[in-house]
Amino acid sequence: MNSARAFAPASVGNAGVGFDILGFALDVCGDVVEVSKGEPGVRILSIDGAENLSLIATENTATAGLIRLIEDFALPFGFDVRIKKGIPIGSGLGGSAASAVAGIVAANALLDTRLNTYELIKYALVGESVASGIAHTDNVVPCLLGGLYICDEETPIAIPVPDGVRVVVVHPEMTIKTIDARARLPDAVSLSTVVKQSHFLSTFIASGFLNDAEKFGRACVDLLAEPGRRELISGFDLAKEQVYSAGAWSFSISGSGPTVFALVSEDIERKVEELIVSTFTSQGIACQSWCTSISPKGARIEESQ
Amino acid sequence: MNSARAFAPASVGNAGVGFDILGFALDVCGDVVEVSKGEPGVRILSIDGAENLSLIATENTATAGLIRLIEDFALPFGFDVRIKKGIPIGSGLGGSAASAVAGIVAANALLDTRLNTYELIKYALVGESVASGIAHTDNVVPCLLGGLYICDEETPIAIPVPDGVRVVVVHPEMTIKTIDARARLPDAVSLSTVVKQSHFLSTFIASGFLNDAEKFGRACVDLLAEPGRRELISGFDLAKEQVYSAGAWSFSISGSGPTVFALVSEDIERKVEELIVSTFTSQGIACQSWCTSISPKGARIEESQ
Repeated sequence: MNSARAFAPASVGNAGVGFDILGFALDVCGDVVEVSKGEPGVRILSIDGAENLSLIATENTATAGLIRLIEDFALPFGFDVRIKKGIPIGSGLGGSAASAVAGIVAANALLDTRLNTYELIKYALVGESVASGIAHTDNVVPCLLGGLYICDEETPIAIPVPDGVRVVVVHPEMTIKTIDARARLPDAVSLSTVVKQSHFLSTFIASGFLNDAEKFGRACVDLLAEPGRRELISGFDLAKEQVYSAGAWSFSISGSGPTVFALVSEDIERKVEELIVSTFTSQGIACQSWCTSISPKGARIEESQ
Repeated sequence: MNSARAFAPASVGNAGVGFDILGFALDVCGDVVEVSKGEPGVRILSIDGAENLSLIATENTATAGLIRLIEDFALPFGFDVRIKKGIPIGSGLGGSAASAVAGIVAANALLDTRLNTYELIKYALVGESVASGIAHTDNVVPCLLGGLYICDEETPIAIPVPDGVRVVVVHPEMTIKTIDARARLPDAVSLSTVVKQSHFLSTFIASGFLNDAEKFGRACVDLLAEPGRRELISGFDLAKEQVYSAGAWSFSISGSGPTVFALVSEDIERKVEELIVSTFTSQGIACQSWCTSISPKGARIEESQ
């Protein structure tokens, strides 16, 4: 095989309740990377679906991991790469992770000896670190594997998702840079807040295994990042108030935002979607929105057309 | 029935990794409280096994909850109470919680309409708060119910304990007052420490459900309370170093100490017990020690002799 194309889905880093450690996959959009064997080195032939992304391989999340791969294994060939961005840039939906994952999954299909899961994570993180400066696993792991994970770099742990948990995802079309969002994080957290957050986190994990949708949904609370970041998302507080009144279990920020998500039961998902979208549009902010579930499907090779 | 006697076991508050939210029961020792119907009011007739505990019912953990019970239900009778302390005072093994739980469980057996689990927790917490000033659930819940719990006051969640997890418990005979131990807690914790602790906590909970003894044991790490409290326990650092070298999965403080515990596989439990005990005794500190497991048995009514 001389060419392979991989799709990698959007993902929700932090998953609300698990700052920097939890993440889940969404099958609402994704990035596609096509990799072909070529001359030594890595070249980006095209980028569709986004402007202002670097065509220099060392600076692009989809290709930085491939350069490291060639070095580590002394591969006798290089890669030509075509990128299709399906995840909005700077949306908080894990776009940089998806490009990094799709790149390494496609390249892996061309190797005589395939990488294992741990190695795939490792090389995807090389790409991800180009975007954020720090290699966080909370998008890379669910994007690669699908589902909800404790995103340990070496041995991620899958957490079951209770039946009946629906996810309303709304992307207001504003951009928040990861670096600005990180500047809003507290340096330190009071011990009493740590105890409350730990209670939510442990309840969330246990409720996944106990298949308790409501307890799982209600435990998805973020006392760490949200207090500083919500101010970056115009309309966040109003939307939160409205969706709780409508019966949503939780409302939180996806990754570093501005995308928000609510965990809800199926009977109210359309109502909750409407409320969030109308809150943003009434402020002149256009939205993309989806009613979906935590997707069990991670990155995969697409058949050639 | 005019008289009932209840046994309530020792417990490990915090369970190392879950400061103020997790706790587990130990079947190594416990408190016994005998309650008899009597004249209005609550009287302590005797306390065996401890000196310096108050015989005034409002000031004793075993009886404060009974006073509240009589008030809340306008009971037409009072209680005469005999207390046998089997858990060393100030040991960090949940002695105040055990007396409070045993008192309310015994009294409950004498009521025409029995309290439910939530109410038992509530009245036990009234007693527990006499001892510490604050009503923490992390001893009361496992002491009452047995097992390992996320100690929510209203709906505690049982966490399965993996097969093969053994607990080495060592009580060095020194006393740490809860108030002194709490003074060693940090007011605030760095966000990076919170992320690491959250990772351990979520891995611990998930490993319980996944029946992964080693991962469960290795995740039992306390970055919140231990750094300040270990200095109160002479020999802690040396014992920790030695038991890790011997292959223990973890080593931590029970509640506010001075009791320590290690999670280990069965093949090394005696070796680990020896190492901890010899560390303390070489400093002139006598010890009680046990090789045991997290006990599924909580408080129970004892048959009259």
